[in-house]
Amino acid sequence: MNYLGRQRRLAEELRRQHAPVLLVTHLPNIFYLCGFTGSSGALLVSATERAPRVTLFTDGRYTEQAKAEVKNARVVISKLPAVVEACNSARKLKPKAVFFEAANISYSAVNQIRHQLRAAGIQTKPLAGVLEQLRVVKDSDEINGLRSAVELGSSLFDGLAGSIKPGVPEAQVAGELELAARKAGAEKMSFDTIVAAGARSALPHGRASSQPVPGNGFIILDYGVILAGYCSDMTRTLHVGPVSEKHRRMYEAVKQAQLASIAAVRPGAEAEEVDLAGRQVLRQAGFDAYFTHSTGHGVGIEIHEQPRIARGQKQKLAPGMVITIEPGIYIPEEGGVRIEDMVLVTATGHEVLTPTTKDLITV
Amino acid sequence: MNYLGRQRRLAEELRRQHAPVLLVTHLPNIFYLCGFTGSSGALLVSATERAPRVTLFTDGRYTEQAKAEVKNARVVISKLPAVVEACNSARKLKPKAVFFEAANISYSAVNQIRHQLRAAGIQTKPLAGVLEQLRVVKDSDEINGLRSAVELGSSLFDGLAGSIKPGVPEAQVAGELELAARKAGAEKMSFDTIVAAGARSALPHGRASSQPVPGNGFIILDYGVILAGYCSDMTRTLHVGPVSEKHRRMYEAVKQAQLASIAAVRPGAEAEEVDLAGRQVLRQAGFDAYFTHSTGHGVGIEIHEQPRIARGQKQKLAPGMVITIEPGIYIPEEGGVRIEDMVLVTATGHEVLTPTTKDLITV
Repeated sequence: MNYLGRQRRLAEELRRQHAPVLLVTHLPNIFYLCGFTGSSGALLVSATERAPRVTLFTDGRYTEQAKAEVKNARVVISKLPAVVEACNSARKLKPKAVFFEAANISYSAVNQIRHQLRAAGIQTKPLAGVLEQLRVVKDSDEINGLRSAVELGSSLFDGLAGSIKPGVPEAQVAGELELAARKAGAEKMSFDTIVAAGARSALPHGRASSQPVPGNGFIILDYGVILAGYCSDMTRTLHVGPVSEKHRRMYEAVKQAQLASIAAVRPGAEAEEVDLAGRQVLRQAGFDAYFTHSTGHGVGIEIHEQPRIARGQKQKLAPGMVITIEPGIYIPEEGGVRIEDMVLVTATGHEVLTPTTKDLITV
Repeated sequence: MNYLGRQRRLAEELRRQHAPVLLVTHLPNIFYLCGFTGSSGALLVSATERAPRVTLFTDGRYTEQAKAEVKNARVVISKLPAVVEACNSARKLKPKAVFFEAANISYSAVNQIRHQLRAAGIQTKPLAGVLEQLRVVKDSDEINGLRSAVELGSSLFDGLAGSIKPGVPEAQVAGELELAARKAGAEKMSFDTIVAAGARSALPHGRASSQPVPGNGFIILDYGVILAGYCSDMTRTLHVGPVSEKHRRMYEAVKQAQLASIAAVRPGAEAEEVDLAGRQVLRQAGFDAYFTHSTGHGVGIEIHEQPRIARGQKQKLAPGMVITIEPGIYIPEEGGVRIEDMVLVTATGHEVLTPTTKDLITV
């Protein structure tokens, strides 16, 4: 991973925003900048000089882990809380102000920092979204990492269909998928696995429950794995038992909507254009009232990142962004359909990363 | 669940602290007060009158779920972010100030609220820990819920020993445990399952890795389930292959230390007394330098709650508290041992909730 390149881009941006000393408290941002995966720590970035200076503060539980993981940063093992130790260190830099990640730090923690720095005549100022906007375009190491995670996730899909039978609880389908993911080398799942069968498929956020799979209807499978710190995310909808004409129309409408949104992915397109392309297809099919969420989201170290692919989102797509395209329709009592791929924005258009078929599979 | 009783106790405490209008943003606190399990929402509690008035604000994804789950609170489905809608509602109460959960809200969100309320001449003030201190003593519904979660977690242990063999990756042991948990009805695991074998057992935070179980040495299993919203947490250490004299001494020392800490649990004891009781046993056995963490923590809706069972913690134990007792020793290269039970503080002493044996099991 090119941590130094990331640190340099951050330092440049901090100088541009006249915010040369930043306290990074959001763990995914710390991982992005130096590779640390521990669950507690703070990173102090100083861009006051040409070469950025980066220091990780963490505690004794992570001595060995930090030694093994952290690149291009000094590591300080501290008995004090990491943010307190980082502030003590920041004082020595004598900056006018220390900036903090306003959206990713609690109000209490800011008070603690402010109290400590005020005594040294240093201001404490909020800065939001700098790292999130750097992370929106993935570098080549990240794209490789995401490809590997997507391939692992997708490879689990074939085994999954075999575990779906009427009467089997949704939670068991999820558990078998998760065991297969562990065996294939996944670190963990990237979010709570969704298995929603029959009428429950009409719940867009239906986590796997103890309900058994009914003898007829849709079953939505939405899951992802984390591999080397990067998330995959995919959804397929299968059908149990004979498929009615209505269910066939529902499935086909979502599939065509998904393809239409994917076709709209290219550099320079506004995020909302991608959303509208699929929504338009569902309108023509008479199902748009049942598409109750947005089309997708960025994905990388976190499962939900920028950009949001939704109405009103003017952010322009750029090469290196990785997004999900996941339209769905949900008809209460009847059931739901969602199809989701991960898509890379390329220099000339897009590349669908998820290799799994979108033909309707029946079990 | 006696939500009304909890709301009344909270209202009483808010009046005592002259903070009659509270915006609750920490999801476990929202669950505690009204039963809502969605991943997005805010709860407005007004204690200005005798009977507390409680309103949940959430979005359209949770309409059905809120209807099914929420008790003793009005539900408002909002298109605006929940905290914004809650503030609009708070304005109608015309309070002098709206208080917020300082440790459980981002700096950005407080700014958003403050901006909105200032226009109406209402102050925005931090309040920390009120709900956490109410939750430290569990009511009878909660104790029943914790008993059920502990029993489910413990019931998985017997099957676990069968899946441990030299050469099997730690992650597979974890995956099989998690599948068994799903089949037994667990909603999810209460934290990332720890399976740490051989030299890795010397890492107190060794999540299940792709490393195979070696032919000889300790293996630490630390896991928990969530059942009906309540967490279990237990650790046992098994041994693979013949047990050396040193390993037998290590195991026995931790077991005696754990029993000594449990024996110290009674109403009125300070948390640090419980920590010291076990630490003393390890000192006599010559292992205290290898006990590098604290003895335990409260557990309930969250896996880590108050009180902390650690040096310097003067909080007095009280009937209804549920804590873990989990001393361990970790000798680099050699391996580690940890034994953990959940313990209820009773009117006269304590009750160990975890029924699993502490005899050294070899596989």
